[in-house]
Amino acid sequence: MLNRNRSLTLVSLCALTFPFLAPVVHAEDPLASWNDGSAKQAIVDFVKVTTTQGSPQFVAPEERIAAFDQDGTLWVEHPMYTQVTYCFERVPALVKQKPELKNKEPFKTVLSGNREAMAKLSTNQLVEILAATLSGMSVDEFKAEAKRWLGEAKDPRWKRSYTELTYQPMQELLGYLRANGYKTYIVTGGGQDFVRVYANQTYGIPPEQVVGTAGETKFGYDNSGKPFLTKQPKLVLNDNNAGKPEGIYLMIGRRPYAAFGNSTGDRQMLEYTKAGDGARLAMLVLHDDAEREYAYGPAESLPDTKVGTFTQALYDEAQKNGWTVISMKNDWKVIFPFERK
Amino acid sequence: MLNRNRSLTLVSLCALTFPFLAPVVHAEDPLASWNDGSAKQAIVDFVKVTTTQGSPQFVAPEERIAAFDQDGTLWVEHPMYTQVTYCFERVPALVKQKPELKNKEPFKTVLSGNREAMAKLSTNQLVEILAATLSGMSVDEFKAEAKRWLGEAKDPRWKRSYTELTYQPMQELLGYLRANGYKTYIVTGGGQDFVRVYANQTYGIPPEQVVGTAGETKFGYDNSGKPFLTKQPKLVLNDNNAGKPEGIYLMIGRRPYAAFGNSTGDRQMLEYTKAGDGARLAMLVLHDDAEREYAYGPAESLPDTKVGTFTQALYDEAQKNGWTVISMKNDWKVIFPFERK
Repeated sequence: MLNRNRSLTLVSLCALTFPFLAPVVHAEDPLASWNDGSAKQAIVDFVKVTTTQGSPQFVAPEERIAAFDQDGTLWVEHPMYTQVTYCFERVPALVKQKPELKNKEPFKTVLSGNREAMAKLSTNQLVEILAATLSGMSVDEFKAEAKRWLGEAKDPRWKRSYTELTYQPMQELLGYLRANGYKTYIVTGGGQDFVRVYANQTYGIPPEQVVGTAGETKFGYDNSGKPFLTKQPKLVLNDNNAGKPEGIYLMIGRRPYAAFGNSTGDRQMLEYTKAGDGARLAMLVLHDDAEREYAYGPAESLPDTKVGTFTQALYDEAQKNGWTVISMKNDWKVIFPFERK
Repeated sequence: MLNRNRSLTLVSLCALTFPFLAPVVHAEDPLASWNDGSAKQAIVDFVKVTTTQGSPQFVAPEERIAAFDQDGTLWVEHPMYTQVTYCFERVPALVKQKPELKNKEPFKTVLSGNREAMAKLSTNQLVEILAATLSGMSVDEFKAEAKRWLGEAKDPRWKRSYTELTYQPMQELLGYLRANGYKTYIVTGGGQDFVRVYANQTYGIPPEQVVGTAGETKFGYDNSGKPFLTKQPKLVLNDNNAGKPEGIYLMIGRRPYAAFGNSTGDRQMLEYTKAGDGARLAMLVLHDDAEREYAYGPAESLPDTKVGTFTQALYDEAQKNGWTVISMKNDWKVIFPFERK
């Protein structure tokens, strides 16, 4: 023990005096929750060729943009998008404000609490609920309410906050890319305002790096003359499918070098990313782990879940175009941060 | 000479050996082109109270957002916005592609080259010209064409590239704010795509920090199956007046701590900025220097110039709300970078 301490002291002294002689300490693997395999290798290779000075595929730091889908790519989306759950749970408060909605569909069904009936609501009815529960308030009121809800709500399976149900390997990937000069963006079909409420705390992604489905706001003044913005029930950007590259162009103005998704809604974003020059990384998270999370898409058929689908056609396109499919089952040592030992 | 060299060497050696004993060298004034006065003082005071640890008005680095209008605030806007000149000069190429426009107004007037008649075009006619010349091509084609034009076009008065006609004191202000941890954004009524072409090279502001009037793009594939985006003649964001705070919310998601403008189109952005907690800086550039640049707004009446106006009402609001008016004539030692000695 004494010997070890003494030798450490000598090394430390040596390092202070001759920093160039300090022993090389290998940092912990930044992708420690990834099993060795083609997915992890694809990430490491991509970062190496795009960040090594002199590499023919070197990318200038300011051009290093990485775009991540959110639901199903960074956190759990099954059996229902968290934001949809939020909107359903907002319906009683909405009906209190607008009693005329009480006996009107689709609000009536949501108020009934009948989950089977709610799962059968049409897309148009869902959109009606989203528009009604996500607009009409000031942006500050919305933010405070969403924050409050996220602090209290629990996922029914894990009995944990939704913000705890992020994928540990993807958190490591975000950190690894940032440590290598990449600016990480969320590019989500979900509501931009909703994701911005928690993205900084949950992923270290600031609001200005969250691109999502966005509605108009309206500038106005309160009674004291103080200006504020009110959320309007009108879409500015439907950040799904082709809307993803369109949203990236609008909000970022640069083509990403890396893009990550998990469903057909991410297809065009990955195509757009791969269409750029030089090394580009496109990856899809495949939910094939029924035990630790869920299995759906080509891995296993689940009943219509209202979440993004990973179709066989998408799988085939990935194979054809050199996109890397991440198998949750095989590539990830753990799924959630709270599972780490 | 010898003595001076020797003493420099001693100082250098001393600095290397005992860095804490190195003489304090006062850096050059980062706002060297600003005359001492209330405008310069307002900037320095604001930066001091928002960036000094322990100051009650300290702002966390990630919250430090500064928003700059572009035309008339960062560069010359008179007698016509540069982008409008660009669109006018694109009309012949457009008519070549679409000969049916040749005898149709407002294109006919633009083709005539009659400047007096062009100055009389209505706003709707201007919008028609902008929409026709700024859409229909791929975003890459647009970028290449705008870049080519900016490399060749000259301002008729100074016979210099438009990108040389930026205001040196505002360039220093951008740099000073960035050196103090502020993220500088352009928030312009001009076209987001157009400004993004030159903002990085001209101001050090990357595309993702340019918010402007933006049109839709449409995702599609070329004959080889490669995806690309085409510019559409449909507005997503009219980033003027109330559109400025709305655009800031959409694209940045944070309220700026400092905002700079020069016309009624910036009013709501400045109001929104000042409505936040803590220290907020709102400044307006007053064009009152007919000799070195132009005088318009309350300073002097110019004929209708199609550029943003600094009305008496705006001036009064500035006085009432503690916004600082920058007098080009009195506050700026030089106007343009090429005038520095």
